[in-house]
Amino acid sequence: MSKLYFRYGAMNSGKTAALLQVAHNYEEKGMTIVVIKPSIDTKGDNKVTSRLGIERQVDVLLAPGEGIMEHMISQKPNAIIVDEAQFLTPDQVDELYAITKMYNVPVLTYGLRCDFQMKGFPGATRLLELADDIEELKTICRCGKKATQNIRLINGEPTFSGSQIAIDGTENITYDSVCGECYLKLRR
Amino acid sequence: MSKLYFRYGAMNSGKTAALLQVAHNYEEKGMTIVVIKPSIDTKGDNKVTSRLGIERQVDVLLAPGEGIMEHMISQKPNAIIVDEAQFLTPDQVDELYAITKMYNVPVLTYGLRCDFQMKGFPGATRLLELADDIEELKTICRCGKKATQNIRLINGEPTFSGSQIAIDGTENITYDSVCGECYLKLRR
Amino acid sequence: MSKLYFRYGAMNSGKTAALLQVAHNYEEKGMTIVVIKPSIDTKGDNKVTSRLGIERQVDVLLAPGEGIMEHMISQKPNAIIVDEAQFLTPDQVDELYAITKMYNVPVLTYGLRCDFQMKGFPGATRLLELADDIEELKTICRCGKKATQNIRLINGEPTFSGSQIAIDGTENITYDSVCGECYLKLRR
Amino acid sequence: MSKLYFRYGAMNSGKTAALLQVAHNYEEKGMTIVVIKPSIDTKGDNKVTSRLGIERQVDVLLAPGEGIMEHMISQKPNAIIVDEAQFLTPDQVDELYAITKMYNVPVLTYGLRCDFQMKGFPGATRLLELADDIEELKTICRCGKKATQNIRLINGEPTFSGSQIAIDGTENITYDSVCGECYLKLRR
Repeated sequence: MSKLYFRYGAMNSGKTAALLQVAHNYEEKGMTIVVIKPSIDTKGDNKVTSRLGIERQVDVLLAPGEGIMEHMISQKPNAIIVDEAQFLTPDQVDELYAITKMYNVPVLTYGLRCDFQMKGFPGATRLLELADDIEELKTICRCGKKATQNIRLINGEPTFSGSQIAIDGTENITYDSVCGECYLKLRR
Repeated sequence: MSKLYFRYGAMNSGKTAALLQVAHNYEEKGMTIVVIKPSIDTKGDNKVTSRLGIERQVDVLLAPGEGIMEHMISQKPNAIIVDEAQFLTPDQVDELYAITKMYNVPVLTYGLRCDFQMKGFPGATRLLELADDIEELKTICRCGKKATQNIRLINGEPTFSGSQIAIDGTENITYDSVCGECYLKLRR
Repeated sequence: MSKLYFRYGAMNSGKTAALLQVAHNYEEKGMTIVVIKPSIDTKGDNKVTSRLGIERQVDVLLAPGEGIMEHMISQKPNAIIVDEAQFLTPDQVDELYAITKMYNVPVLTYGLRCDFQMKGFPGATRLLELADDIEELKTICRCGKKATQNIRLINGEPTFSGSQIAIDGTENITYDSVCGECYLKLRR
Repeated sequence: MSKLYFRYGAMNSGKTAALLQVAHNYEEKGMTIVVIKPSIDTKGDNKVTSRLGIERQVDVLLAPGEGIMEHMISQKPNAIIVDEAQFLTPDQVDELYAITKMYNVPVLTYGLRCDFQMKGFPGATRLLELADDIEELKTICRCGKKATQNIRLINGEPTFSGSQIAIDGTENITYDSVCGECYLKLRR
């Protein structure tokens, strides 16, 4: 029985580099994979891109209401890999879970847990509830502690209100990853 | 900076025994702890009880709307430990998170992730979104695989509808822990 | 394919309680297990005993040169569980590893990593090299940090010389678990 | 108190890519690091190179008898990162452990556990005995299971005798990562 994996981490913790490594490992062994990115993430179009300077074509740009099974059946992959998995809908996560159990295909998902207001992304929350294997990808705060939260900056200034989804680099918005203590201090 | 820990596991995975061990370890070193149980769990009254035959008095039976800080301030504990943490409200989880960061007190919580319908308990979902450290306590399915889901049985028969909370042992209800594959097969 | 698990932790971290929980979980599901203790550990005779006040009969008291396969074949267990696994010989660890792969029986081992001089126990070292799954059972130092090292006390005074094996409670010897920093400070 | 981390994984599991990500994360936050590679690894000279096509200059090519403290003191780094850590000597591992505790500098090490004969590398064995945090970097076997062992190939044929250290790509030697079951079957 295959597993649903969720690898979560704050902004810039290396989720995409880890994904590209796993994709490479499968293909090096002669196996086939399907790389999925939810289409809500408009950054990078149909590519997944790591800040380390490596990237890869996406196989499926998945729309919010779209099913996954059809993509899987046509390609009979050895594994399914999902970047920006926080943008999956809860129903898509349920479908991925069923695929691991009914079709015995491992599914590896990478994404954020919470947004800049410390609210869970619906797709991430469902992954945390269902994943057979949860692992954190770690990065550090400027203070030296483990960064776990995401700060949204507008023109470099922290902001704590706004819509949940605003893609990095648009409308003068950037993000930084911080530890929980620094997050709470900044918010006060 | 202290951490918020969430130790999750299916029914009968040994969560309470693990909690009692941690409580013992703190007290053996001369430290003080506060053991909390949400009052929604009416089983065992003001005790936490492990199936291994060990138990312990609860310090605080916490009502759904009740604050935690007051209990903490009066007792200045070295750690806070919560059993049946899936019954915390999301606000109580947020408060526990703030306590770890602002008062530097570690908080260790033990609970289920999902109910018998594979829906997240609100307290567990919030813990999964916020916890600094997530770890699974494992148990096994009758088929030999890792059990991750909970089946509700009425007079020994699986049921997939009903209210989220029904305490084990009341109204002919019992629970069993199963793997994801067995769960999905039983549900069909 | 089954796995060889190594659950390590400092003295008094709850290894035996965790073992007793796993044994209970297997038997509750109607499965059979074989509980092994190396005979070098003379404490508790043919029992494994947790400081939480629970204990269990050992099925096999294993002598240093003794094979494990014979015990396994006669009993066809669903799992093998080993307490005080640091006292296994490296050859016995190799045999356990082969059993997991060739006979598809999971083996769960619990033990210390290093002795009171921060030297690895040969059985533990081999388990660390081979185990498919390594997990730490945590406890705390009096200073509040994670305890990872073991201090030997003679009449309550730390000592840093002597034979590797001296059972807790004999010859005025006791042990305490401390963090790495406290260990190095005490040793100076 | 800082930690000594050991990230182990079979050949081609992505250890160097993970290392490069961590180095990037530190530097992105304005922190300084020292990247060390034991000089025994002659592959890539004074670079660490990932198969994903990314690389980085090494700060210290460390000879077997050489001390680490001197490099640390002159540079006052926020972290020390070691590639091919299985080639450290046990004494160097002890020194790194002391640095984390006495100078409060985190040390992150990446390496193999066992050689092609399933014997531990001395540096890796010592890291497993001492590390405060052990984590596996996973890759897969051709059979689909988790690869944990390393096979040495001479002209593509598995071999089970020879010296412990023979660098990949020299003398017609290559390596492949396999699961424990495939390893034991090939060795028979």
